[in-house]
Amino acid sequence: MTTVTTSHADGEHTPIPRGKARRAIRGYASGKDDYLARLSKIEGQVRGLQRMVEDDRWCPDIVTQVSSVTRALQEVSVGLLNDHIHSCVVDAVRRSATDADAALDEVASTIRQVVRL
Amino acid sequence: MTTVTTSHADGEHTPIPRGKARRAIRGYASGKDDYLARLSKIEGQVRGLQRMVEDDRWCPDIVTQVSSVTRALQEVSVGLLNDHIHSCVVDAVRRSATDADAALDEVASTIRQVVRL
Amino acid sequence: MTTVTTSHADGEHTPIPRGKARRAIRGYASGKDDYLARLSKIEGQVRGLQRMVEDDRWCPDIVTQVSSVTRALQEVSVGLLNDHIHSCVVDAVRRSATDADAALDEVASTIRQVVRL
Amino acid sequence: MTTVTTSHADGEHTPIPRGKARRAIRGYASGKDDYLARLSKIEGQVRGLQRMVEDDRWCPDIVTQVSSVTRALQEVSVGLLNDHIHSCVVDAVRRSATDADAALDEVASTIRQVVRL
Repeated sequence: MTTVTTSHADGEHTPIPRGKARRAIRGYASGKDDYLARLSKIEGQVRGLQRMVEDDRWCPDIVTQVSSVTRALQEVSVGLLNDHIHSCVVDAVRRSATDADAALDEVASTIRQVVRL
Repeated sequence: MTTVTTSHADGEHTPIPRGKARRAIRGYASGKDDYLARLSKIEGQVRGLQRMVEDDRWCPDIVTQVSSVTRALQEVSVGLLNDHIHSCVVDAVRRSATDADAALDEVASTIRQVVRL
Repeated sequence: MTTVTTSHADGEHTPIPRGKARRAIRGYASGKDDYLARLSKIEGQVRGLQRMVEDDRWCPDIVTQVSSVTRALQEVSVGLLNDHIHSCVVDAVRRSATDADAALDEVASTIRQVVRL
Repeated sequence: MTTVTTSHADGEHTPIPRGKARRAIRGYASGKDDYLARLSKIEGQVRGLQRMVEDDRWCPDIVTQVSSVTRALQEVSVGLLNDHIHSCVVDAVRRSATDADAALDEVASTIRQVVRL
């Protein structure tokens, strides 16, 4: 029961102050290091794109590389979305119908953003 | 005539060594600073995503931000593709039918990558 | 309780024979007529595309029209996906952790298809 | 020369009356039957989607099928776009710089629609 309440508090939509971050259990928290590693690699790829432009590399080669970065970012998006459904949405469903509805509406609008509709 | 030959040389698919970069006239060369500024902003956004994960921010908020970075990258892709058609492809068409065919085949496969087919 | 059991039976992945269709309560069942109307409109748009090609219409105009049909189809996809999460996934979460996991894995792979990863 | 002039007339953006269609040489004209066959197959797939909804088929299965139709439509889009660049844009480049600019602007906005930016 305590867990449920805690998980409810975590579900609040407001940003968590840095100092409190340790206590938050987000959907992706278990895979946090993995997401950080992937984003750090993506950051390096974006720097690589700058070097390609700097060096006047052939446009189609740069476009190919941009597509690869875009895909890596979308993998992050879909991963986060699924982690979110797996934890926060499931928690909301177990709490109450009202919480479930709110959580599912948010998921619906997030899916639309990922698909870009 | 000299220009045509030079422009042909530029069209070669090999990377141009840094030292020679000044001589290369790529399709995007005129807008190079603009592309560098946009990629530098995107790099900052990717660092921002890492901070969001670090701070255990709410998944849908991170996903929203990832979508915004993805869109910015696709704007870069489409910009580069159009610049490429505007300069390199037009040059190829003016040179010869053979060069035009090669250039258009490359554009076709680049468009497929951007659309992800 | 009876409902839960029925809904479990519906959740089976095998196609339902036409004669039994009336009994099935899918996630989208309540909005079935809406989906049928949208798909029927899309079918008409695809026939319109054939007429455009038949009449040798200007390529960019046809491409614009194709994009509009593609978007309408993706709206259907995202609608079905959300209805599915709203009903079948929520039911599975309420049934058991095992059912929830299976349902969420299926949602994850469906989202990947919609986003085309 | 005559060809160039004819091709210019064809390039006009107004729809061609059915009776005159035989005279039009669009970029895709040579592959017209292929596009008609693909669109006819897509029309059949959309009818298949309606049957799936009618029969209360499992949502993720319908979504999978919608993705396949969407991809087939995007293949048509990209095919038409490339045919258009191959013929109408190349013709415009050969005619004049002004015609080339107009054609390339149109291609740029068409690519944006396909990529959905």
